[in-house]
Amino acid sequence: MDYYKESLKLHEENKGKLAVVCKVPLKDKDDLSTAYTPGVAEPCREIHKDPELVYKYTAKSNTVAVISDGSAVLGLGNIGAKASIPVMEGKAVLFKSFADIDAIPICIESQDTDEIINIAKNIAPTLGGINLEDISAPRCFEIERRLQELVDIPVFHDDQHGTAIVVSAASINALKLVGKRFEDIKVVINGAGAAGTSIVKMLIALGVKDIIMCDSKGIISKAQQGLSPSKQELSELTNHEAITGTLKEAVAGRDLFIGVSGPKMLTEEMVTSMAADPIIFAMANPEPEIMPELAKKAGARIIGTGRSDFPNQINNVLVFPGIFKGALAVRAKRITEEMKVAAAYAVAEVIPEEELKEDYIIPSAFHPGVADAVAKAAGQAWKGKE
Amino acid sequence: MDYYKESLKLHEENKGKLAVVCKVPLKDKDDLSTAYTPGVAEPCREIHKDPELVYKYTAKSNTVAVISDGSAVLGLGNIGAKASIPVMEGKAVLFKSFADIDAIPICIESQDTDEIINIAKNIAPTLGGINLEDISAPRCFEIERRLQELVDIPVFHDDQHGTAIVVSAASINALKLVGKRFEDIKVVINGAGAAGTSIVKMLIALGVKDIIMCDSKGIISKAQQGLSPSKQELSELTNHEAITGTLKEAVAGRDLFIGVSGPKMLTEEMVTSMAADPIIFAMANPEPEIMPELAKKAGARIIGTGRSDFPNQINNVLVFPGIFKGALAVRAKRITEEMKVAAAYAVAEVIPEEELKEDYIIPSAFHPGVADAVAKAAGQAWKGKE
Repeated sequence: MDYYKESLKLHEENKGKLAVVCKVPLKDKDDLSTAYTPGVAEPCREIHKDPELVYKYTAKSNTVAVISDGSAVLGLGNIGAKASIPVMEGKAVLFKSFADIDAIPICIESQDTDEIINIAKNIAPTLGGINLEDISAPRCFEIERRLQELVDIPVFHDDQHGTAIVVSAASINALKLVGKRFEDIKVVINGAGAAGTSIVKMLIALGVKDIIMCDSKGIISKAQQGLSPSKQELSELTNHEAITGTLKEAVAGRDLFIGVSGPKMLTEEMVTSMAADPIIFAMANPEPEIMPELAKKAGARIIGTGRSDFPNQINNVLVFPGIFKGALAVRAKRITEEMKVAAAYAVAEVIPEEELKEDYIIPSAFHPGVADAVAKAAGQAWKGKE
Repeated sequence: MDYYKESLKLHEENKGKLAVVCKVPLKDKDDLSTAYTPGVAEPCREIHKDPELVYKYTAKSNTVAVISDGSAVLGLGNIGAKASIPVMEGKAVLFKSFADIDAIPICIESQDTDEIINIAKNIAPTLGGINLEDISAPRCFEIERRLQELVDIPVFHDDQHGTAIVVSAASINALKLVGKRFEDIKVVINGAGAAGTSIVKMLIALGVKDIIMCDSKGIISKAQQGLSPSKQELSELTNHEAITGTLKEAVAGRDLFIGVSGPKMLTEEMVTSMAADPIIFAMANPEPEIMPELAKKAGARIIGTGRSDFPNQINNVLVFPGIFKGALAVRAKRITEEMKVAAAYAVAEVIPEEELKEDYIIPSAFHPGVADAVAKAAGQAWKGKE
């Protein structure tokens, strides 16, 4: 199936992928007077008296904005707001299909950090949550952090945390299979962008003590001069012995390789140099850091990619619909670390331990009940925190 | 029927009035790969190459934002963004029900003119049009004007132009009944806010030469000192003899009274002082400038109000769904004066001349075909302009 050709056809025939519908009837004057003037004045007055009632009388409690500036879209790079719309509409389709959340794409023309924050903050009244999407690093970190300080609804940069949570879920199940513990494993992450940064933090929250990170220049180390603030932070969280070197040197002896970088970064030779029972999550899209068949030949025991045409697709869609659904249900004001960890375990536990095998460590996007399991776990984690 | 009570119930039971739906299936991996990655990259790339294709491959061509800062909501005043949401959702319901347009409420927390303009401009990529709503005068004038200069999609402040167009439609048919012409009549408008200002301009476009406008201080005249810029403009457009005085003095001898002010502004005595066959459009909501039965008793020949429980409801919903539908269909870059005049005549002509009578000069909101008639007329007027 030629997905590119089919996709063009699908988008043209439907004029995009989203529509708005009314949840109330509008057939006669009584309907009009109830849904609109004069009746509508009453919910307005009630909300004016008690702003919390906005959750009771409007669609806020089930509405999420998918906000992007189009600066880092999929594998396409900085294609800008207009060209990013099909992706943001697609994300909204996933929100609806997997969690019955009403999501609206907001594609912002400006790529100025302050402006994006200000715009998102100012349009928050109708929103129950904000999903930041495809915003380039390191701007995405600052935008998420500062925006979350300004609004009392959850702000979630899916490229960071969605990826980190689903990688964590895959790691939880992979470790069960190989009989290792987070506390004992050595991890190498290639790619220090939005996803890599969040993955580091989640793995630490899960108990991992030994992580080496690489970017295009090799191992990130506090021994390096002139690190950017975000790389500086990563150098503090990882590589405690401050070693330097190449990706090849970083990979040797490691139990788990996580790639959020680009095609062909991992060679068979590198896989062979890893510890026993190597786990490879090669998530570059569309071409992974190493093709699964090559990795397997080189001795990898478990392989996951971002692709749906190989086993073990490590797919954000397992996480973001459910985590928002849970957050909206308990009216969480942000997505906490506890909620993310709970979500990772919830995804992992969708597969009963006796069904786990090398080619089945993570459920498929269409596995029934994933979003509900994640929602429940995330909601409970928020309440536990309160 | 207690619309206030029913409205609260309706809003609570449905959690607001809007939902988002998918126009494309998402049942299996092929659907996912077509609507989302990897297929979605193709429409993104196409739009990146040719930005105009955003109309072909996204929902832009049928999406309108209803943007408000909640500063002048219905009869409720400055209740802010959150409390305005039920009205904006209601407006979106009308867009959908009457013109099948997908409208999304954007309720902006800031009431700063520059910020509102900047936000609306920056979220325009996904939008085919912008309906400004319930923004207080005179800020609404500046916001509309400056925003329209910044975007290539129509910006339409419905409180101004929707009202002006539907008042014009009512005037067209009322004049047919009384056998007078726009060129010859004397008009008095009470209320110099957003609606009053736009009504003046439309009536002039329709050929009216003699208009007196009043605000709470009486007749607006260039003889006055210290007029605000917007009142200054009105004083130039109206009252060519620069008379001064009270509303009572302004009404005497006039053929048409248009009230966009408040309850009980027009007395029976004033109606009696008007020219033969007086026409009264008393549109203050919920209580008109004069109650229809009183006006009739005092000699008014034709009376219209904003209310659905009296004949001749002068209702914006006759206009904005259709004018946007027409503008979207021809991809108009703005709403021109010609489009507004065409829309007014289209609404008026929905009623065949032989069916016109004092109590039936304007179709009801639910009259079939109004939006399509307006859309067709507005679209043709834009094309004629090109």
